[in-house]
Amino acid sequence: MSGAQYMAEYDPIHPPDAIEKNLPADKQLGAVDLSTVEKIGVVGKDEEKARLERFSRRPSLSEVLNLHDFEAIARQVMGEKAWAYYSSAADDEITIRENHAAYHRIWFRPRVLRNVTEVDFSTTLLGHKSSMPIYITATALGKLGHPDGELNLTRAAAKNGVIQMIPTLASCSFDELVDNAKPGQVQFLQLYVNKERSITEKFVRHAEERGIKGLFITVDAPQLGRREKDMRQKFEAEEPDEMDKNKSSVDRTQGAARAISSFIDPGLCWDDMKWFKNITKMPLILKGVQCWEDALEAYDHGLAGVVLSNHGGRQLDFARSGIEILVEVVDKLKERRGLSFPNEKFQLFVDGGVRRATDVVKAVALGATAVGIGRPFLYAFSAYGEDGVNKALQILRDEFEMNMRLIGAPTLKDITRDMVDASSIHQHIVAVPDDRLYNVNYEEMVTARLREQDKAKL
Amino acid sequence: MSGAQYMAEYDPIHPPDAIEKNLPADKQLGAVDLSTVEKIGVVGKDEEKARLERFSRRPSLSEVLNLHDFEAIARQVMGEKAWAYYSSAADDEITIRENHAAYHRIWFRPRVLRNVTEVDFSTTLLGHKSSMPIYITATALGKLGHPDGELNLTRAAAKNGVIQMIPTLASCSFDELVDNAKPGQVQFLQLYVNKERSITEKFVRHAEERGIKGLFITVDAPQLGRREKDMRQKFEAEEPDEMDKNKSSVDRTQGAARAISSFIDPGLCWDDMKWFKNITKMPLILKGVQCWEDALEAYDHGLAGVVLSNHGGRQLDFARSGIEILVEVVDKLKERRGLSFPNEKFQLFVDGGVRRATDVVKAVALGATAVGIGRPFLYAFSAYGEDGVNKALQILRDEFEMNMRLIGAPTLKDITRDMVDASSIHQHIVAVPDDRLYNVNYEEMVTARLREQDKAKL
Amino acid sequence: MSGAQYMAEYDPIHPPDAIEKNLPADKQLGAVDLSTVEKIGVVGKDEEKARLERFSRRPSLSEVLNLHDFEAIARQVMGEKAWAYYSSAADDEITIRENHAAYHRIWFRPRVLRNVTEVDFSTTLLGHKSSMPIYITATALGKLGHPDGELNLTRAAAKNGVIQMIPTLASCSFDELVDNAKPGQVQFLQLYVNKERSITEKFVRHAEERGIKGLFITVDAPQLGRREKDMRQKFEAEEPDEMDKNKSSVDRTQGAARAISSFIDPGLCWDDMKWFKNITKMPLILKGVQCWEDALEAYDHGLAGVVLSNHGGRQLDFARSGIEILVEVVDKLKERRGLSFPNEKFQLFVDGGVRRATDVVKAVALGATAVGIGRPFLYAFSAYGEDGVNKALQILRDEFEMNMRLIGAPTLKDITRDMVDASSIHQHIVAVPDDRLYNVNYEEMVTARLREQDKAKL
Amino acid sequence: MSGAQYMAEYDPIHPPDAIEKNLPADKQLGAVDLSTVEKIGVVGKDEEKARLERFSRRPSLSEVLNLHDFEAIARQVMGEKAWAYYSSAADDEITIRENHAAYHRIWFRPRVLRNVTEVDFSTTLLGHKSSMPIYITATALGKLGHPDGELNLTRAAAKNGVIQMIPTLASCSFDELVDNAKPGQVQFLQLYVNKERSITEKFVRHAEERGIKGLFITVDAPQLGRREKDMRQKFEAEEPDEMDKNKSSVDRTQGAARAISSFIDPGLCWDDMKWFKNITKMPLILKGVQCWEDALEAYDHGLAGVVLSNHGGRQLDFARSGIEILVEVVDKLKERRGLSFPNEKFQLFVDGGVRRATDVVKAVALGATAVGIGRPFLYAFSAYGEDGVNKALQILRDEFEMNMRLIGAPTLKDITRDMVDASSIHQHIVAVPDDRLYNVNYEEMVTARLREQDKAKL
Repeated sequence: MSGAQYMAEYDPIHPPDAIEKNLPADKQLGAVDLSTVEKIGVVGKDEEKARLERFSRRPSLSEVLNLHDFEAIARQVMGEKAWAYYSSAADDEITIRENHAAYHRIWFRPRVLRNVTEVDFSTTLLGHKSSMPIYITATALGKLGHPDGELNLTRAAAKNGVIQMIPTLASCSFDELVDNAKPGQVQFLQLYVNKERSITEKFVRHAEERGIKGLFITVDAPQLGRREKDMRQKFEAEEPDEMDKNKSSVDRTQGAARAISSFIDPGLCWDDMKWFKNITKMPLILKGVQCWEDALEAYDHGLAGVVLSNHGGRQLDFARSGIEILVEVVDKLKERRGLSFPNEKFQLFVDGGVRRATDVVKAVALGATAVGIGRPFLYAFSAYGEDGVNKALQILRDEFEMNMRLIGAPTLKDITRDMVDASSIHQHIVAVPDDRLYNVNYEEMVTARLREQDKAKL
Repeated sequence: MSGAQYMAEYDPIHPPDAIEKNLPADKQLGAVDLSTVEKIGVVGKDEEKARLERFSRRPSLSEVLNLHDFEAIARQVMGEKAWAYYSSAADDEITIRENHAAYHRIWFRPRVLRNVTEVDFSTTLLGHKSSMPIYITATALGKLGHPDGELNLTRAAAKNGVIQMIPTLASCSFDELVDNAKPGQVQFLQLYVNKERSITEKFVRHAEERGIKGLFITVDAPQLGRREKDMRQKFEAEEPDEMDKNKSSVDRTQGAARAISSFIDPGLCWDDMKWFKNITKMPLILKGVQCWEDALEAYDHGLAGVVLSNHGGRQLDFARSGIEILVEVVDKLKERRGLSFPNEKFQLFVDGGVRRATDVVKAVALGATAVGIGRPFLYAFSAYGEDGVNKALQILRDEFEMNMRLIGAPTLKDITRDMVDASSIHQHIVAVPDDRLYNVNYEEMVTARLREQDKAKL
Repeated sequence: MSGAQYMAEYDPIHPPDAIEKNLPADKQLGAVDLSTVEKIGVVGKDEEKARLERFSRRPSLSEVLNLHDFEAIARQVMGEKAWAYYSSAADDEITIRENHAAYHRIWFRPRVLRNVTEVDFSTTLLGHKSSMPIYITATALGKLGHPDGELNLTRAAAKNGVIQMIPTLASCSFDELVDNAKPGQVQFLQLYVNKERSITEKFVRHAEERGIKGLFITVDAPQLGRREKDMRQKFEAEEPDEMDKNKSSVDRTQGAARAISSFIDPGLCWDDMKWFKNITKMPLILKGVQCWEDALEAYDHGLAGVVLSNHGGRQLDFARSGIEILVEVVDKLKERRGLSFPNEKFQLFVDGGVRRATDVVKAVALGATAVGIGRPFLYAFSAYGEDGVNKALQILRDEFEMNMRLIGAPTLKDITRDMVDASSIHQHIVAVPDDRLYNVNYEEMVTARLREQDKAKL
Repeated sequence: MSGAQYMAEYDPIHPPDAIEKNLPADKQLGAVDLSTVEKIGVVGKDEEKARLERFSRRPSLSEVLNLHDFEAIARQVMGEKAWAYYSSAADDEITIRENHAAYHRIWFRPRVLRNVTEVDFSTTLLGHKSSMPIYITATALGKLGHPDGELNLTRAAAKNGVIQMIPTLASCSFDELVDNAKPGQVQFLQLYVNKERSITEKFVRHAEERGIKGLFITVDAPQLGRREKDMRQKFEAEEPDEMDKNKSSVDRTQGAARAISSFIDPGLCWDDMKWFKNITKMPLILKGVQCWEDALEAYDHGLAGVVLSNHGGRQLDFARSGIEILVEVVDKLKERRGLSFPNEKFQLFVDGGVRRATDVVKAVALGATAVGIGRPFLYAFSAYGEDGVNKALQILRDEFEMNMRLIGAPTLKDITRDMVDASSIHQHIVAVPDDRLYNVNYEEMVTARLREQDKAKL
């Protein structure tokens, strides 16, 4: 299952064996509109030259103080289309931003005068050690950002003692990513289920053989989302004339996501869980659960956990944030099944919108086992390769150490529910539209000012 | 009732037989200040030339990704006064924006692992098939945007299997719009009730004879609204001198809406419903109901339904959005009359502010049978004629298909109340005015930056 | 008590007989820092010339569509210091803006199908007819805006059938304002109570003799507020040198308000109400009540009513708006004393922040008898003299007529409590400070764009 | 314990005897990265020249109307690094701004008709007289802003009858600050507890001997925070080359705070309270308590009070504001221990975000004994030395006098809980992300405009 055959120019952006594995032979050249996919990465020479010049002026890694900085730099040094693919989200991109904003509705209630000389924020995910309560979540098309693609993540994960979730739609082949793991390095696998179940079965059995420790079945993407920034990219680099000619060519206007995902089965349903249990012994986790009812269902089906996620805001706009869903899931599963969280038997993960260790600490306080981080690591390696990911993980480690001390918790177990106030989490407020005429008339106050530089001249 | 006599230059903007039908003969040249109406569409030559040049640069329809895009393009390619008439709303235009904003206070609770291979979002409105849970609602003066006026809507409605509501104040004559319907094409009629009931009776009987399937009686416009953008247009193209001379001429400052609507009867009341039942067998629906008390009253009067609407924000500013009213109507009609929604016997419609299929899905989850969409279609044909409307409907269809899958609902019946969180819908928040001095003093954080391009030169 | 002696250059800004009446003879030249007061209105010649040029370019009154417009024009055509005095408010000017914003947290629940052919929004205030449920509230120093000062208001009030409340600190003398009233024209008087009660007694008895129909005792201004825009004006027109010399001169930095108000008695208290009842038979109303406890106290003291007001935001910053206080006052006086509102025996007035008739309709629905409007009329006469005030009142009349129809109320009595939703009125929200780094990194979406004008040139 | 030896260039920024006292001899030159610290204050010559020029143009003190003004001026006349050190806060600086914003969610319910001729806002803190319910709280490195450092505060405190809390990390030596106190002048001491308790014991005993009246033990800083503005300063003044060389030098990127605070003991815990009681008779107050549970704990440990504080937003981001915590502390300590506040036996202090006397009045109404003010005084002396602090205190005094009158309270005891509405204090709202496309399409309303200056030319 290695050595996929593909053309060189196709390489930068598509997952080679994902195609091979997921599409039946007769569709491998047809169903995916390669011309669309190919276009990504092709840019004007001048534009590319300017980009490389900017790349050469990246600040030293020691100037990168937080995860935001990677994004700021990546935005300037990545190709436009790669940036569009990574940063885009569904419809009006409300949910992608809400994912981050929701964390800001949660505030700390720190405890003082606890001995925090030694702090330890290591934990276990599905029984496997992690140096921090985070994991590198699955994101597609890593080579758009860096020639080594997801390998950057594999290597940094090993170095920093965190777990990587391998994506189905990785740019690197699955085996390449497993082959490059260090001995003992734990990896999870994210799975899009194929319409042809035999392909999925083969892939899952192979993954288990190769030592994958957890299977995260994506359930929030029966069809991949419309991401308009990504779609709009198509037109920007083209001649108007050409556009007219291609008026009828719907497919090529749908962006990279649609082009590479036609194999995903929208018919996947709860009944399939039994089948999964028959073909693998790996713990099964549903990725993309979005309400307590489905979390309860997953628990009742004997699964190992759920990822409360809306696919990074890339699928259904106005889907709620994982951190908001977490609050109701913990409440209801306690009420209905007497569970308390974090829970070894049924683990809750959250992803989407994380930029600070404080975000993660909030999720842990609310009952999550760990939090998945995706885009920030993409931006880190797009700007600095593996070094970037290492630095990103170091920043998180520094932030965790500080946060644990300041919240008064020597270990993750000491981060309790009462250390956060999440009472505003369910508030989805839109202000009354502004009264433009009143506001235009209102004259803003001013502070005292320095005297004029040369009064005489006035 | 066809073949209205009118001057050519009057044609672009007024509803020919609306005047003929609605105004008594002796007032047809007097009551409506034609000079005002006429002015609309008259613009400077240079301005018009520039507009046509912009028109020629419209992007290809394949570049239009969502309903917002039509508005963005229409704003640039329409005449200023036409734009002002279509886009304007009451007073400070708070309600028009709230209509859209209210949808943003409603969030999804999608379900996963449901078989959504096939999704079907067709439905019936008053017993008539529609390919989507939307309809083209009535909007006046279609020829301001395009020479074919409302015919663009009639044709696109037929092609896309949706229902058009013909407006009383259409630019095309009623019969023209009916004549152009395809065999079997269902049309509804929006009605402004005339002070002279005999005129209305004649019009209603005629409509029924012509096959209209539902009569939507507008009840939120006993007098047409003050729309200041529209009113302000009057002055912009005129000489100050002329304005001084006309100081006393109040009428011409009131905009197009007032000029064409003096016939509407502010005395219309519940007692008239009996009379309507006597003159027609068409289902009667009230358009513009704004609280549960009146929805209940309509139900008790044996009407077929209500449109929860504030007239697109064009009448009473600070009227609540239809979607907000829907929540209380569904609650109270269940409490008081044991009704559940959607309900075949008493249908709830909503209009105002819709831009995405997600908006419609929210309304359906909350109990609406269908949602009326108005301005977006006006903008679509103002920019691209019938093709624009077809494209707009295609976009909605694409969005619906995606949304149904992502929310986990194979049919509209599967979209249930618990799939949305509308708990913030009644929140009308205005933030405490900002502390200007504090904010001016606060220095915004900055991200890491690229190094200077040529350090030596600095 | 007419014919006050004062210097011509003092005239534009100070209330001539207010000084005479309120200050004991030995303080009339000392206590008020005339030099400060005088300075207002004195501006550079070039600045004044530019202002007069702008004045000549005022738009025709027919272009003024709403009360906001008067403010927009006044801001450009008034002298800077006059503008600063009128527009300024306490501290960070939070309350002045909240006064307006609070109305935006109240939304309508209009009723339909009521016969609104005839609408009547006339009412009575303290038993006296008013053509609308508003009155012209007291504001100081009218001559700063227009040479005729408050006379503009007296005349327009007569013409439009509304009641003027004469301010203690009017620029015109009290008698001048009474002398110019039309036969039968009702006037109220606003009163600042003097430390020397004999002066106040004399003034009150005189007012009653002259036919004043209601005495509004200001209770929210035991000391006049710090208004920094007004204070900052002092420095802007002065030389830095001069400022240094006057470092110790505290008084002249306190703005016009402080300079003219040193006579006000901060010792005024509930016990004084008895005394007032002894010296006059005029109905006594407290102006500036700000919580239900004091409204109840006023009722128990047998007063005729209260004005729920924070002095236009000019006194205590973070005082709540009158409209918010109204909600609690109506609730508690019903609960504690069984009163319902509007109530002839104990009338509730509100002022502050009103710009639209919709604002007034909201107050009426919540139980107010009438609403005081101040600054908008100042701006109206500053820009257009009496014509401006007439136009302002005409605009309100037009808006009322429309609003009554659209809310479904033929008379003010038909405007009931259930026609508004004020459930968000007590919410004082400040959003969590924005996440600058996240927001800077987020790339805003864009709409479809017109093609480039000349592609070849690019 | 006076006369610490240190190099001249080190003087401006570090606390001389803090180092001497807190670090064991063998670490005094090693543990603190002096090179980092030293860099602060070193700026380019041109930049410094421009700064001094700006300094010369400071407005006269009489133009300073409020505490905001000091900050506006200081920002322009301070060195960049000093400004960065003073103004920076933790992570995304959410909490520093929330500290101020929280006060804006509290509104007044003023009482009228109370005799406020004489108002008295003096009070006692831990039994010691203060002319106002405020104190000058501890802030580090005063010499960054002014050569006299904290002495400016000592002198102004004496002159204005308020209490200064001496910081452990003052730029002036502890004894210098005590030596310069006027006879009878009360001073408190803020304490960072040293890992070597003997050093702390010596310092505490010395402080008691020198007459310190209260020991405020900082408990919210087991490790000093990451303050990115401060950290980013490091790079801005350096050559990129140099940065590359120092890639591994982590310490120097951590800002001034970290460099001077390595001695602080993260192991400090409740058990240590007993030890403190053994070594001193000074009242013990915990500075940095952040939830009612720890306030209760402090009470049960027999301490004299707590400061509800998050260290000016410089430690844990998303820590709640002191004023918000105050509300829950007062509620719970009443519920659990029957305490009422203000309370002589267990005093509650608050700090963070205060800019107006209204802020302090709110805290007093909610139960605080007094409020600590820090940065505003730093900015005051950075811009104007001791005169600035005197003026700042005078402004507060003026504001207090006004506020007491306007709220209707002759003394602080008359400021009661019902005079404020704090019902929105716990609301942490983040608005739904804006709908960019909708908002871009919406055309803002405009006001009436002046006519063109020269119509003919258009």
